[in-house]
Amino acid sequence: MAAEIAHNVHVALGERAYDILIGDRLLDHAGSILAERFPGRRYGIITDNMVAEAQLPRLLASLDAAGLSHSEIILPAGESTKSFAHLETAVEGILAARLERGDLVIALGGGVIGDLAGFAASIARRGMDFIQMPTSLLAQVDSSVGGKTGINSPHGKNLIGAFHQPRLVLADLSTLDTLSPRQFAAGYAEVVKYGLIDDEEFFFWLEEHQAEIFAGGPARGEAIARCCRHKARVVIEDEKELGVRALLNLGHTFGHALEKDTGYSDRLLHGEGVAIGMVLAHGFSARLGLAPSQDTGRISAHLKKAGLPTILADIPGALGSTETLMAAIAQDKKVARGALTFILTRGIGQAFIEKNVDGAAVSAFLDEMRGSA
Amino acid sequence: MAAEIAHNVHVALGERAYDILIGDRLLDHAGSILAERFPGRRYGIITDNMVAEAQLPRLLASLDAAGLSHSEIILPAGESTKSFAHLETAVEGILAARLERGDLVIALGGGVIGDLAGFAASIARRGMDFIQMPTSLLAQVDSSVGGKTGINSPHGKNLIGAFHQPRLVLADLSTLDTLSPRQFAAGYAEVVKYGLIDDEEFFFWLEEHQAEIFAGGPARGEAIARCCRHKARVVIEDEKELGVRALLNLGHTFGHALEKDTGYSDRLLHGEGVAIGMVLAHGFSARLGLAPSQDTGRISAHLKKAGLPTILADIPGALGSTETLMAAIAQDKKVARGALTFILTRGIGQAFIEKNVDGAAVSAFLDEMRGSA
Ligand SMILES: NC(=O)c1ccc[n+]([C@@H]2O[C@H](COP(=O)([O-])OP(=O)(O)OC[C@H]3O[C@@H](n4cnc5c(N)ncnc54)[C@H](O)[C@@H]3O)[C@@H](O)[C@H]2O)c1
Ligand SMILES: NC(=O)c1ccc[n+]([C@@H]2O[C@H](COP(=O)([O-])OP(=O)(O)OC[C@H]3O[C@@H](n4cnc5c(N)ncnc54)[C@H](O)[C@@H]3O)[C@@H](O)[C@H]2O)c1
Ligand SMILES: [Zn+2]
Ligand SMILES: [Zn+2]
Repeated sequence: MAAEIAHNVHVALGERAYDILIGDRLLDHAGSILAERFPGRRYGIITDNMVAEAQLPRLLASLDAAGLSHSEIILPAGESTKSFAHLETAVEGILAARLERGDLVIALGGGVIGDLAGFAASIARRGMDFIQMPTSLLAQVDSSVGGKTGINSPHGKNLIGAFHQPRLVLADLSTLDTLSPRQFAAGYAEVVKYGLIDDEEFFFWLEEHQAEIFAGGPARGEAIARCCRHKARVVIEDEKELGVRALLNLGHTFGHALEKDTGYSDRLLHGEGVAIGMVLAHGFSARLGLAPSQDTGRISAHLKKAGLPTILADIPGALGSTETLMAAIAQDKKVARGALTFILTRGIGQAFIEKNVDGAAVSAFLDEMRGSA
Repeated sequence: MAAEIAHNVHVALGERAYDILIGDRLLDHAGSILAERFPGRRYGIITDNMVAEAQLPRLLASLDAAGLSHSEIILPAGESTKSFAHLETAVEGILAARLERGDLVIALGGGVIGDLAGFAASIARRGMDFIQMPTSLLAQVDSSVGGKTGINSPHGKNLIGAFHQPRLVLADLSTLDTLSPRQFAAGYAEVVKYGLIDDEEFFFWLEEHQAEIFAGGPARGEAIARCCRHKARVVIEDEKELGVRALLNLGHTFGHALEKDTGYSDRLLHGEGVAIGMVLAHGFSARLGLAPSQDTGRISAHLKKAGLPTILADIPGALGSTETLMAAIAQDKKVARGALTFILTRGIGQAFIEKNVDGAAVSAFLDEMRGSA
């Protein structure tokens, strides 16, 4: 049986170029796809225990059928796996499996596994090739593309890592069937993000196709491919995030601060923080008189329909003080010389980078948003 | 007072190009050199406790005099500092000091600190600039140049790391005055290495100037500059060690196996392992009929005069079995698809890369060398 590749998005990065293959049941064809593209390699699969249970058997069967040699490293599921301790486990696992420089690391899982395994590959033997096999919606539309890899620090999210592009991204749509609805919704926040940044038409399309995307119709693959094309374009333009790539952080400065405050726990998933963060970024831009305030309402309604939190009060449990949140914002890595850098917007599809945001205004805005529960 | 830069070696790596400044008491001028070359930066100094005692005050005084802001991270001295645990300390220290992407990490110390701090800089905030201030002879002639950074694994030396070029190398000759004679001799093994690889004339020059180099005359700076020029040339040609750069590993495959076997301890310093390894590489090449055996004797005599060990029996304590050594050799990262890669030689100044070395022949040779105490 031939692989059903519905979409192939090429990331044209010169000698680091690669394809993003999107389609149904691609994991079942992984063995033959890899055997053809990377003859003679051995594979080290890094995954987490939940994905191992739900999806690993299919991948192993397919590698075995193609006669490919492999070993597995299974880490605990969850954001706290993006730590030094688990990075060490992953790297030492790669070395223990005697994988050589020409062999391949496979990241099978969500963004946590993709970020961690990609980083592990980048430092094992001073750089090994790796393949992303994203299994969460968030990973398929965002984290598996673009080569940002890394782990978290007590000082903030993703503060430690490397730029390391994968050699191939294999997004199997059918893996999303075993993803929890809450995780699917969280990933959907990143889908919406692409529309909000600079593609108003995509946002309107999402408003029309939201139900089909959640139900798993063809619009799902279509939405994922559009997100990958968008991200690929940005990454090609600005691989190392020196400029325009920062737009992809729309909603993330607020989001990261909230994630930190809730201890990177089940209280708030990354995409949920981004959902609230995007509403905050639009609300703050409206407050500054930059954007129409009805856009904030429209975005908020769309995210709510997807089952996402949209205001601070949606977060269960007590939040830290505004000062604590501001400190987290200041430590976020997108800080240059003390001035706060934010992604602000002039409305849906009109985000921009503002390097000189007044901390006091942000703080006052947050104070108010906490009150308005 | 103007800095006394005796030699300036340029490493022409395009947008990653940098200078190696060599001279007396350069640390006392570091503040003004940095203020001129990197205006407006802040500095995070990583060093070890021995270098902190011997050299850090001079650097701090000079930074203070130039009004440069700095913070310090002091790690324990010794090879075992090249570990995940200390890497974490270094990276978290950089983040705790709130150094930003545009700031600079300074590696003040020997090869251990240079490798570790350079690696920490490469992964903190996904890549910060750093400066090498090598204080051991080994670091001044070898490890501070070329951008190989990293830590050790239980599976072998330097198996985890990154290619990350420094922005500047500042080699202060006067720092060598506080280096122990044993460490100086160990570094000298790497000096000799450059002659053995492809510069017979340099080896002969070393035979003539050995006493002056050890005594600290002008030949010392001259020798260091020649080594840096040699290494710079190789690095420019093959930055990522895909080819000719591997020649710099002359003596290192044996050396690394011996270091591993002695637990990276005081029993055998890196340069001492390299000294024995170079003699073994020449001896093995002679055994294969590739090189004249009198060269082995000549090299061995020169290294012995420098106070270096040259045979296995010079290593205090019992060595592991030949099988253990062979396993370490096979796990060394310069292994491709099971075939052993060695740097062999046709004589002094005539080293070459051989990718198809017969493991059984190496094993038999080692067995014999163990007997010939
Ligand atoms: N590198 C980047 O450019 C980038 C971009 C965005 C986000 N991220 C990172 O991505 C991470 C979030 O990714 P995520 O939301 O995928 O989190 P995740 O990897 O933790 O996955 C979410 C949960 O779903 C489970 N899961 C994943 N796929 C599954 C499947 N098919 N079936 C059953 N369970 C499955 C996982 O085990 C986990 O428990 C964050 O750490 C974030 O920083 C990185
Ligand atoms: N990156 C590369 O290309 C490369 C090349 C060769 C070696 N290396 C690495 O370099 C390391 C060995 O370097 P090293 O021999 O410099 O070891 P080192 O850094 O451990 O220094 C040796 C000892 O001397 C002390 N010391 C250093 N400078 C001093 C000074 N001026 N005064 C007093 N004490 C001083 C240190 O505290 C240490 O105890 C190994 O880990 C090896 O793998 C790396
Ligand atoms: Zn995100
Ligand atoms: Zn060496």
